[in-house]
Amino acid sequence: MFKEIFDNVRAAAPLVHNITNYVTVNDCANVLLACGASPIMADDIDEAADITKICGALNINIGTLSQNTIPSMFAAGKASNELSHPLILDPVGAGASALRTNTAKKLIEELEVSVIRGNISEIKALALGAGGAKGVDADVLDLLTEETLENAVSFTKRFAKEKNTVVAVTGAIDIVTDGETAYTIRNGNANMGKITGTGCMLSSLVAAFAAANREKLLESAAAAVIAMGLAGEQGFARLGERDGNAAFRQYIIDAVYNMNGEILDAGAKYERV
Amino acid sequence: MFKEIFDNVRAAAPLVHNITNYVTVNDCANVLLACGASPIMADDIDEAADITKICGALNINIGTLSQNTIPSMFAAGKASNELSHPLILDPVGAGASALRTNTAKKLIEELEVSVIRGNISEIKALALGAGGAKGVDADVLDLLTEETLENAVSFTKRFAKEKNTVVAVTGAIDIVTDGETAYTIRNGNANMGKITGTGCMLSSLVAAFAAANREKLLESAAAAVIAMGLAGEQGFARLGERDGNAAFRQYIIDAVYNMNGEILDAGAKYERV
Amino acid sequence: MFKEIFDNVRAAAPLVHNITNYVTVNDCANVLLACGASPIMADDIDEAADITKICGALNINIGTLSQNTIPSMFAAGKASNELSHPLILDPVGAGASALRTNTAKKLIEELEVSVIRGNISEIKALALGAGGAKGVDADVLDLLTEETLENAVSFTKRFAKEKNTVVAVTGAIDIVTDGETAYTIRNGNANMGKITGTGCMLSSLVAAFAAANREKLLESAAAAVIAMGLAGEQGFARLGERDGNAAFRQYIIDAVYNMNGEILDAGAKYERV
Repeated sequence: MFKEIFDNVRAAAPLVHNITNYVTVNDCANVLLACGASPIMADDIDEAADITKICGALNINIGTLSQNTIPSMFAAGKASNELSHPLILDPVGAGASALRTNTAKKLIEELEVSVIRGNISEIKALALGAGGAKGVDADVLDLLTEETLENAVSFTKRFAKEKNTVVAVTGAIDIVTDGETAYTIRNGNANMGKITGTGCMLSSLVAAFAAANREKLLESAAAAVIAMGLAGEQGFARLGERDGNAAFRQYIIDAVYNMNGEILDAGAKYERV
Repeated sequence: MFKEIFDNVRAAAPLVHNITNYVTVNDCANVLLACGASPIMADDIDEAADITKICGALNINIGTLSQNTIPSMFAAGKASNELSHPLILDPVGAGASALRTNTAKKLIEELEVSVIRGNISEIKALALGAGGAKGVDADVLDLLTEETLENAVSFTKRFAKEKNTVVAVTGAIDIVTDGETAYTIRNGNANMGKITGTGCMLSSLVAAFAAANREKLLESAAAAVIAMGLAGEQGFARLGERDGNAAFRQYIIDAVYNMNGEILDAGAKYERV
Repeated sequence: MFKEIFDNVRAAAPLVHNITNYVTVNDCANVLLACGASPIMADDIDEAADITKICGALNINIGTLSQNTIPSMFAAGKASNELSHPLILDPVGAGASALRTNTAKKLIEELEVSVIRGNISEIKALALGAGGAKGVDADVLDLLTEETLENAVSFTKRFAKEKNTVVAVTGAIDIVTDGETAYTIRNGNANMGKITGTGCMLSSLVAAFAAANREKLLESAAAAVIAMGLAGEQGFARLGERDGNAAFRQYIIDAVYNMNGEILDAGAKYERV
């Protein structure tokens, strides 16, 4: 099923507008190119809405939030909503500071967000108003395991329903849900957390996948999560003795570059619950 | 002929001031070091002109334009002009938003730009006031081919003459002209478009080459275009089965690192028209 | 001795707040993950102090200084001082512009800086009020050699004593001193200067090492300098014929990823003077 989703990305080559952080922005651009999309980054208030209008999706990432870019997020978000473009929010570090938590919440309140993609600590900070975030990483107490999975699925479904959006929670097990249906995904590799930007790259992929499959937001988000996880598995398998997280980062982007719908379907490990 | 141009870069090790975007800035810094130059990035209005004064060239790239950095571009540009330093402009995404098109035009109007380096859509947006830019990539309708080459050369020559500058248009075939003489260059590899930043890196190289060869702006720009294209060919030849755009990016910078004037001359594919 | 210092980093996994430049920020994040720490980047005045409070150390790097981030540096620095967190300053390009020199001096004056990490030109600019900095690289006249080492050690000790801080001067030979004791370190490889960000990455490592070893600032800084130098040696040894500075950068981060206390101690080349 996810085959078509990915093939549509390569066929449509959507242009994706990213208002994102300066830490992982280069990786986001390269992973978008790797999956067949085109990136454009633009965060100035004088062009943010204009750029959104020529794109197929908008990806807002609050990883290095600033006074200058917050208004651009809202302006671009409104333009995106007017055109019914998919709008992806990555609430990086929500729970780590009031600025991050409050800005993410306000974005969800004032904009129609199509997909929220974060780790469980970030999603909890948005849902419960308090977070155990360890900076931009999930708190160890929040880790998704087989034991906590059922509760986490229920929690994520409720949050998705309440916010009327698709929610993709990534961790040891990933959950993607629109509030009704949920996918639990077991692709990926624990060492991906040792690379900066795997979450940010995934959010960019979600934007590209959604841009090319507008009527299938849930499946697009799930397909992107699977693609990133599978790339992580393939990249990890490729690591040599002296390789570390820098090589791993490169292998993951390269795995996305060499992926297609068929490979994605063959490697996908998910359940529909 | 281009041998000396490159050898001069390694001999002079010019310091290049970059006011550039935060997407590809790390690659620009590393490619400058790879060719033998030294990078410095500084975009605050309180130091932009000061930094320009200690450098050998200024590279202005509008890839992530902002209210904060636009005044710095003009301030540094004026300081650069006063010292008769080479000033390179990369009008990233001109045509994609009014802010980009208008800022690039104003920079060309108010500053003496030595070299404009862009794709054909960007150059058309500056020349004709309307662009078919697909974000930061050239529109498919604009692609330079053997069929459209003659027209494109004439068009680029006219634009260079009118603006009294060297223009380097890069694509499947590259054109570098000062309005009188033009080089058509057939180095490069189509997959370079699958990496973010090959254009930005090239503009940084043009700045370094021009800094070390001030009296030969046209040849410096042509040599940099050839060097980048040749690095793309060499990098592409090195790609393994599981490599993708992330590996390709690294191989290109490494190819520049291992290049010298002799290699450049041996691999150059150009005509003077 | 340095074994425990490094092992403590992996055991404590400290969260490090970086207010840093956008050129090398991705490498800083990845090298922090490589050594076992976690990075967070946050430079907006509305969250800088909040983020510092949840972290174990603060790393201030002035590589792309701006009006927006200078107040955040002071705000985060004060919050860091109140909590007695280690505060690391990397005065990138001090001496290259008045803005950089003056900001770095003011940071040292108004904050209690635990470790200053720079090249000899930058440190001279701060100590003597005038610099021979070649942009962000040390001036060739300032290069640390066996001949100039004794003078350089005395000079660095005096500066450290005067500023009541640890000073780590890196170059062909590195000097780390608290004003009383000094380590001279001969790890590293001259080609590290051909990669952007080895200095910035080192400063991030110093912050991580100090966060996990609060009572041993001098030894933490020395251990980080040795670790980075050793990673440079190991990375250099791994370079193939077609590799250049881009591969070297990756190999260095990967070497840190694969390092542990034992490897560090075995490879350390230092004297206590």
